[in-house]
Amino acid sequence: MKIGIIGCGAAGGTAAQFARKTNRNAEIVVYDKEGYGQYSKCALPFVIGGMDWQRIIEFPPEWFRKNGIEYRNEEIYRVDLENGIVEGEKEEEFDKLIIATGASPACPFEANNAYFLRTLDDALAIRKRAEEAKKVIIVGAGLIGMEVAEALIKAGKDVKILEYMPQILPGMLDKDIADYVMKKLNIDVILNCKVKRVDGGTVEGNDCYEADMSIIATGNKPNTFSGKAIEVNERCEAREGVYAAGDCTIIKDFFGRSIVVGLGSIAARQGKVAGSNAAGGDDAILPPILAKTTKLFGIEIASVGLLSKEIDGIAARYLGRDLPHYMGGEEILVKVVADKDGVIVGCQAVGRGAAKIIDRLAIAIYNKMNVKDMARIENAYAPSVAPTFDAIEIACSMIERKLK
Amino acid sequence: MKIGIIGCGAAGGTAAQFARKTNRNAEIVVYDKEGYGQYSKCALPFVIGGMDWQRIIEFPPEWFRKNGIEYRNEEIYRVDLENGIVEGEKEEEFDKLIIATGASPACPFEANNAYFLRTLDDALAIRKRAEEAKKVIIVGAGLIGMEVAEALIKAGKDVKILEYMPQILPGMLDKDIADYVMKKLNIDVILNCKVKRVDGGTVEGNDCYEADMSIIATGNKPNTFSGKAIEVNERCEAREGVYAAGDCTIIKDFFGRSIVVGLGSIAARQGKVAGSNAAGGDDAILPPILAKTTKLFGIEIASVGLLSKEIDGIAARYLGRDLPHYMGGEEILVKVVADKDGVIVGCQAVGRGAAKIIDRLAIAIYNKMNVKDMARIENAYAPSVAPTFDAIEIACSMIERKLK
Repeated sequence: MKIGIIGCGAAGGTAAQFARKTNRNAEIVVYDKEGYGQYSKCALPFVIGGMDWQRIIEFPPEWFRKNGIEYRNEEIYRVDLENGIVEGEKEEEFDKLIIATGASPACPFEANNAYFLRTLDDALAIRKRAEEAKKVIIVGAGLIGMEVAEALIKAGKDVKILEYMPQILPGMLDKDIADYVMKKLNIDVILNCKVKRVDGGTVEGNDCYEADMSIIATGNKPNTFSGKAIEVNERCEAREGVYAAGDCTIIKDFFGRSIVVGLGSIAARQGKVAGSNAAGGDDAILPPILAKTTKLFGIEIASVGLLSKEIDGIAARYLGRDLPHYMGGEEILVKVVADKDGVIVGCQAVGRGAAKIIDRLAIAIYNKMNVKDMARIENAYAPSVAPTFDAIEIACSMIERKLK
Repeated sequence: MKIGIIGCGAAGGTAAQFARKTNRNAEIVVYDKEGYGQYSKCALPFVIGGMDWQRIIEFPPEWFRKNGIEYRNEEIYRVDLENGIVEGEKEEEFDKLIIATGASPACPFEANNAYFLRTLDDALAIRKRAEEAKKVIIVGAGLIGMEVAEALIKAGKDVKILEYMPQILPGMLDKDIADYVMKKLNIDVILNCKVKRVDGGTVEGNDCYEADMSIIATGNKPNTFSGKAIEVNERCEAREGVYAAGDCTIIKDFFGRSIVVGLGSIAARQGKVAGSNAAGGDDAILPPILAKTTKLFGIEIASVGLLSKEIDGIAARYLGRDLPHYMGGEEILVKVVADKDGVIVGCQAVGRGAAKIIDRLAIAIYNKMNVKDMARIENAYAPSVAPTFDAIEIACSMIERKLK
């Protein structure tokens, strides 16, 4: 059996590994147009901030070769899905194909001489240019925009962020939670800013802004040969013998929506499944509940499931401390979102341990738990670790009372 | 309606609060033989370590009085459950009774002039005596013994711990995990030590040990008028009109075992339910899954559900790091325990965020999730916060493979 994998990101690289694990004899070829092997795209803001880029390489080309996977630093220009043929430097035929071509930056306005961040080369180019810059404008206050902003601020740059929406992190947080985060961060963000044109460091938005360089982080579009995201099922199958994984795919999430996920965690899980199945295994992903997290200036921010703005439900927000009063502790903000029957569908958290709170809520959402049970289930309590009744239980009790 | 509550710990104090919330007009009397109001028993090791004892008072006598609850610093000697009569300084009759009398230290050997820790007065007595002591022996390496040991070591004392079992924290951890913790802690513990007699600082165990004082932490026995733990249902009812909550009760846990729980988190939840129901409400606790945690010398330790030694199942242990390699991170050890069908029944964790990992597993256990789903569900991932596949997912995958 011969398996061809196009792309070597979290999806493609993981697919190669699991294809190998599942089938010791298959011939496996990975095409990586970048040439670095599998590295962590989520770590690119750290590279911009000065981290040695070699540290973020998780599986270098040699790793694949050592594990009997043919690694080719080659770009693929054409794919014939029906016949399993890919065309790079030459044409090659495969029994199974895995498309893991990722995504590319999307920009809704005219931009010249601006920087985008998607690849390691992009990050190195931004870092190089930023060395000579004092002022930087970032367009887009999503996860990538915010993380790059942090890296550059820490490197001593004067950073201004322009965001089209009336809040930061619009894909991850409700406005009330985003406003709380923004107050904590104390950074220069201009909201509701309609950027029309970017040329170098000159950005025409509501006003005209001048900097030494600009970075555009306004989202991505899937990289596919058809120009459209590839629809796959939970087995990561696009059609017989053809699998796809990662940011180039469109899948059904836990709430039944067909979406392009764009999360490394899901890309890796899809890669695992695509690789196993292509090699003769039988695996399936769980529909994504969309657990997301980041840490900005030491503040952990996380969310999972639906935001209030995405559902006509009931929400409760609770601002407390993560330890009993006599232990001090740190401020923790949680917001739980339930549907009209009290079934938990989403949660946002800001503060120490936010991501692990979200991991707990992901399990609750997956099991369709209601706020009544969640307000009663115990948490591990000790004064040095957690309060007797934690923020999640209190927020769920608040929703329970609203339901009555 | 007249409600009498005997005891003002996590169970009794919380019962009073929720009786008041549920019924604005009921006459509520709380009997507290100690006289401090509701304080955190779990914080007593910190008081031994030097914390101002007033800080751990959560609801002082005035708080109850201000909220229309009659607070009496009075000991009750006799209870007539059938007729709702309690006898302290005088006899008094109630429509509903809540028994929340807690527990007292139990000692399986002869002990004279030794210290026990259960009340604030006990903690203050230990602290006073320890001021003049250089060497301290602690008998019992359970949660209380270990936490007191930490407090005294930090206060500069030379502390030796003697434990009957072949491991520390025997009620909370399997031996393999306890051994890992012990290695990290680097404290003076003698395991398999059969103590026969204690007199002051002289302890006859396997050898004879000499210190300036000894503290015995070998467990508790329920404080009840009958001498036996009070059996209650999930509504915290012992018989019609009589409720009980906290360490004096025996209840069914999630696994169907009748147990005396002895956790502040469960005592408070039982108190909430007993108080609400006595006042005319209708509430029930969830059967305890037994989430436990502590932090010893900065190391977070937590567990939930069944230990390996308590079930003929399948377990997997995974020692990893809590961040991707390029971010450094800290060591994290997890052990997941499943039954023979792969349903998760327990988890132990040691390291940063252990308690929140356990809270997540408590939700999984409550929903009877199997290792297959748990190995596939996403976690909130970002390099600065968590790895793509975390320790729990890896441990669950290991069990999944063992099941095949």
